[in-house]
Amino acid sequence: MHRRVLTKPDGRRLILYARQPLPDDFVAPSPSADRHQPNPHLRWHPLRGEWVAYAGHRQHRTFLPPAEFNPLAATTDPAHPTELPAGPWEVAVFENLFPAFAAGAHDPPALDVPTAPATGACEVVVFTQDASASLGRLPLRHVELIVDVWADRYVELGSRDDVAYVYPFENRGVEVGVTLHHPHGQIYAYPFVPPVPARELEQQRAHWDRAGRSLVGDLCARELAERVRIVYDGPHVAAFMPICARYAYEVWIAPRRAAPSFAALSADERRDVARALKTVLLKYDGLWGTPFPYILACHQAPTDGALHPEAHLHVELYPAYRMRGRLKYLAGSEIGAGVFTADSVPEETVTQLQAVEVDVDA
Amino acid sequence: MHRRVLTKPDGRRLILYARQPLPDDFVAPSPSADRHQPNPHLRWHPLRGEWVAYAGHRQHRTFLPPAEFNPLAATTDPAHPTELPAGPWEVAVFENLFPAFAAGAHDPPALDVPTAPATGACEVVVFTQDASASLGRLPLRHVELIVDVWADRYVELGSRDDVAYVYPFENRGVEVGVTLHHPHGQIYAYPFVPPVPARELEQQRAHWDRAGRSLVGDLCARELAERVRIVYDGPHVAAFMPICARYAYEVWIAPRRAAPSFAALSADERRDVARALKTVLLKYDGLWGTPFPYILACHQAPTDGALHPEAHLHVELYPAYRMRGRLKYLAGSEIGAGVFTADSVPEETVTQLQAVEVDVDA
Repeated sequence: MHRRVLTKPDGRRLILYARQPLPDDFVAPSPSADRHQPNPHLRWHPLRGEWVAYAGHRQHRTFLPPAEFNPLAATTDPAHPTELPAGPWEVAVFENLFPAFAAGAHDPPALDVPTAPATGACEVVVFTQDASASLGRLPLRHVELIVDVWADRYVELGSRDDVAYVYPFENRGVEVGVTLHHPHGQIYAYPFVPPVPARELEQQRAHWDRAGRSLVGDLCARELAERVRIVYDGPHVAAFMPICARYAYEVWIAPRRAAPSFAALSADERRDVARALKTVLLKYDGLWGTPFPYILACHQAPTDGALHPEAHLHVELYPAYRMRGRLKYLAGSEIGAGVFTADSVPEETVTQLQAVEVDVDA
Repeated sequence: MHRRVLTKPDGRRLILYARQPLPDDFVAPSPSADRHQPNPHLRWHPLRGEWVAYAGHRQHRTFLPPAEFNPLAATTDPAHPTELPAGPWEVAVFENLFPAFAAGAHDPPALDVPTAPATGACEVVVFTQDASASLGRLPLRHVELIVDVWADRYVELGSRDDVAYVYPFENRGVEVGVTLHHPHGQIYAYPFVPPVPARELEQQRAHWDRAGRSLVGDLCARELAERVRIVYDGPHVAAFMPICARYAYEVWIAPRRAAPSFAALSADERRDVARALKTVLLKYDGLWGTPFPYILACHQAPTDGALHPEAHLHVELYPAYRMRGRLKYLAGSEIGAGVFTADSVPEETVTQLQAVEVDVDA
């Protein structure tokens, strides 16, 4: 993998990635002429015991612009710069113009609850130059490159003092609030370990202390032994609908061994992660013959300086639909009480995904 | 308040409420002829450390039927029974035809994770006979009756051995997944204390142990002293946008004193809760001159047999919009990491609600 680091005219960083060496005459464009000086802050939620991030400037961010204003397309007319230069890059990462977390955050307001600067980073990961593609339909080698990029970001962001947790994710589809259709994901680098991974790590830690093994690894092994809910079974990686699926078509992808992050995976393992991911996403799109909206969440070991032998990399996919044409709304029970009510059991819905034939090497 | 308890032909309970004595010749109808024998189950989510409820029969529940099939309207033609009889009742409660929790749940599947019968109850609270009304537009006296009904349900459901937590809520608007437009809320009676209130109680308990006072009471007192985020200031009850609001128009309603539940409130306090609630909901609808979608979540003391001096009743309202015409989607950061990113600060948005004039006594 080759990368080239550039600075945009407004001060933001842009990193271009490709399998082949990249030319060195790239100039980083920006649709914004203003100096980038975001200043988000955190407030402590005393009743939930968690931080909430405030970034007032996000209110007016780009919302489904027409295709000719796609800020994730390569710039073709220097008079109308986008976020990306033309040229032979394959994947690109740049700092979000409207970040909820930013390295330069400073001087949070003094309030009756604890506050803090919302340091960290919000990066956009442009998966491809092809605005009409999707993560699952990219060639396998290209998906592998994206896994390599996630690994690169884990190492670089995770090494920063203000970053305790590196979280790659993708929101796919207007159903989950996507504002730009060009295939892209995001990486949030939080200055704390967020509540959901923190809760999972707590459970993983208890299992580790009790059993001396990885909880995700044990779940993975049981699925591979039982084979009822398996969606992909590779040499290093499994994808399965978890026995405790909250979403009707929820799938987890995990390496069999307790690798803590994308960065800790070997080249072979990364290839298998890419194959598992492409398999699942093609099955999603094939299920009803239509793009399948989801949230993709990558949970890795924190980069908070502590040891995390319990942390086992896994990707959780939360699809938006509970059946064809019917969205799963998170409402009173899920949001106000935290209790998921599932309308189906995974043993039934998984058979639908298993039946979808896909050609990952096509 | 007068109430009449009936049994539907399918075995479900129906309770009618009114200010005036009710006639004793009601016959409870049901749109379903089958014996009601739901059997939802729970599975333990080992990674999140929480229960997930599975109720496969919910998949085919009534979805936005045309008005002539409104199951929450009073029955006018005995050949087409709805859920409710005609007559002078004002508020009605009945067991949900598609419950995620049910008293008779039994024999959960044996799986590789702990399972349990999803005991408890799911009740529908029909707010009025007027299909075109809304909770906020009901007369104040009627809203008071609903508060009395919530208190009645807390006592009755909370006294059951299989109920550890009584949770009244309302999903309002198609934006939050409402399937029936007739004004109604729900009550879930969980066999465990759910994660969100459990987390809040943990924080409340820590504050109680440290300060010897209610956390919600202290938050309330500070808002009343600062007055910046106050939406309603009554003799017993305050409504305010919390300093740590996660939703752009989030409002909390709480009695000033640490009453643990609706049942623990005096008649005067209940009247003030109703007035606060109606004030907030009218301001919501008045903000953009259109019905304002929200989730209303009532957090009370658990009924798990333990003492909960820390528990302080409060109503949390989570509106669906972050600005006019723009929904707040819970996506990668909120759902996959548990970190809310707010696009506005409450000190600014609250001024919009404060400016909406409402006549609660109209």
